[in-house]
Amino acid sequence: MTSAEPTDTAPSSDASYEASRVRSDAAWEKIRTDPSGLRMLTGDRPTGALHIGHYFGSLRNRVRLQDAGVETWLIVADYQVITDREVLGDIRGSVRELITDYLAAGIDPEKSTIFTHSAVPALNQLLLPFLSLVTQPELERNPTVKAELAAAGKSAMGGLMLTYPVHQAADILFCHGNLVPVGRDQLPHIEQTRVVARRFNERYAGGEQYFPMPDALLSEAPTILGLDGSQKMSKSLGNTVMLRMSPEETAKKIKKAKTDADRQITFDPENRPEVANLLTIAAQSTGRSPEEIAEEIGDKGAGTLKVMTAEVLNEHLAPLRERRAELEKDPGYLFSVLRAGNERANAVADETLAHVREVMGMVY
Amino acid sequence: MTSAEPTDTAPSSDASYEASRVRSDAAWEKIRTDPSGLRMLTGDRPTGALHIGHYFGSLRNRVRLQDAGVETWLIVADYQVITDREVLGDIRGSVRELITDYLAAGIDPEKSTIFTHSAVPALNQLLLPFLSLVTQPELERNPTVKAELAAAGKSAMGGLMLTYPVHQAADILFCHGNLVPVGRDQLPHIEQTRVVARRFNERYAGGEQYFPMPDALLSEAPTILGLDGSQKMSKSLGNTVMLRMSPEETAKKIKKAKTDADRQITFDPENRPEVANLLTIAAQSTGRSPEEIAEEIGDKGAGTLKVMTAEVLNEHLAPLRERRAELEKDPGYLFSVLRAGNERANAVADETLAHVREVMGMVY
Repeated sequence: MTSAEPTDTAPSSDASYEASRVRSDAAWEKIRTDPSGLRMLTGDRPTGALHIGHYFGSLRNRVRLQDAGVETWLIVADYQVITDREVLGDIRGSVRELITDYLAAGIDPEKSTIFTHSAVPALNQLLLPFLSLVTQPELERNPTVKAELAAAGKSAMGGLMLTYPVHQAADILFCHGNLVPVGRDQLPHIEQTRVVARRFNERYAGGEQYFPMPDALLSEAPTILGLDGSQKMSKSLGNTVMLRMSPEETAKKIKKAKTDADRQITFDPENRPEVANLLTIAAQSTGRSPEEIAEEIGDKGAGTLKVMTAEVLNEHLAPLRERRAELEKDPGYLFSVLRAGNERANAVADETLAHVREVMGMVY
Repeated sequence: MTSAEPTDTAPSSDASYEASRVRSDAAWEKIRTDPSGLRMLTGDRPTGALHIGHYFGSLRNRVRLQDAGVETWLIVADYQVITDREVLGDIRGSVRELITDYLAAGIDPEKSTIFTHSAVPALNQLLLPFLSLVTQPELERNPTVKAELAAAGKSAMGGLMLTYPVHQAADILFCHGNLVPVGRDQLPHIEQTRVVARRFNERYAGGEQYFPMPDALLSEAPTILGLDGSQKMSKSLGNTVMLRMSPEETAKKIKKAKTDADRQITFDPENRPEVANLLTIAAQSTGRSPEEIAEEIGDKGAGTLKVMTAEVLNEHLAPLRERRAELEKDPGYLFSVLRAGNERANAVADETLAHVREVMGMVY
């Protein structure tokens, strides 16, 4: 949820995936026909400005859902920054960059609520009753936690990372979110939230459906690879095009992108991932299909593909970048948007916590 | 901290214990000479009314500290009820009983703050940054958690129990508590809180001593055994004298207490624990020594010891019970005391959280 992880929508025989897929399809149908009653929770760790991987992989999709009439909640997961690093860095600066990208991309603060995790105590308090509903082995089974356990190597697992699946449940359920856009690899997160909601309803709410069972919303958004050919676009690898880059920087970055020696351009993600990646970026920027673009370029080689990709990408991002430049001039406005969002999130979280206390008999 | 666990003050060669003991002695000296600046945090799980084990083992000591001028915070740890049980029961009723006993025993709501864990969101939010400061193996090493792990047997460890040492750190540190009355077996809890405080100060507060390093306050308060000879007085075992009992019920309970066949009464806790227990109760009730009382009874047997113990216990508890009867008539007052305490706790927790956000750079 709170990242722009690769979205893998390949078919599978796994029953749990199929069940999620069916519910996701039903949610898409509802979005098309009657989005009222849909409440989406999504967000990001504030680690700085966003790149086109975030944009084409998730942010643009969120804007579309917002504009389709889905109630949209965007969590800036600042406490998540310290799950796996000791040094905080310039959190405030990272938050500002993130909000700038959100608004530049079309998130409308009148329609959507942007808030920071650390600013909503009643949301965070939900962690305590929710922790009573899960076991240690369940926490360890979460894929993010498992990956962290594996990556941690000799060093020990942190307490905040271990409890991460429950923070996510609180993030989603505090506003009674019922829709979470995720990639297939993140389905177990949603499953854990559904377990928390179900157990809360059974154990504490006497079977009443107090918390909704949120559905994963699987999307067709593409995964953008790093320009160096690595599996992921990542600022720390320097293989990105940032949304905030100038057209010149963008062209320079794409000019340096890894490709292959075959002058005949074809869309073959499996055997020619780097060329396919540029075609995907060009396709996403234009609304055309990558195959069509490949055919058009023909045997003119990777150089032509790069020039063309940079051109259409810059063209597509031009209005976003123009808004971005305007927004950057007014950090006061950016933080006022956040404060208003935090206020809204607190009002909703306070109400939810009051109900939770009530059903648990903790009203004094 | 939040229980009336046996207080074991036997000497030990353990270095960490000795260090705690030295700090505890220094704290006692400060209490005698200048208690200003001392802030005590202690409390109980609300599982109903208290018995004389709670009273002689901890509650009376708290009242003395309060009256000696130590700033006193009493947490009613309602979320702790769900660490190891699924059924909540009548929490509100249990909280009411607990507060009744507190006030009847001499806790003065003008001097002390009584509050419920679930009512203070900013305190609970501290759990998140604090969880980033501890590792899973550290959590599992906590004795309460270890005992639970052992007791859990086949069933899996709950998430709320696993993170329990960190809740305790938040309970103590939210009000900058620097003194926690505990038995020796609970010293590792305080050690964990000291670790959290130290790491927070180092990692997030740039070395500033933002959170105090709380000291354990070891007391000479006795452990009262169950009247059936078991190691613990416990309502579920039916081996208690409850503070709220009538003098007649008290006498009846003590009459049924397990003793031994030796008519010569001696104070020998190791070989005659049941007789020694009654002598301890009588001694605590009168301020005399158990040896002196044993000598006075001589060879008159356990029957005489029981009658005498019931008599002095009832006499000692009479004023408390009288206040208790008055308080019981006015639940509105009891809950108004709690509401005032919760208000005070929230004001302090909000201030602490604001500072925590500031040092962490999470002010937007």
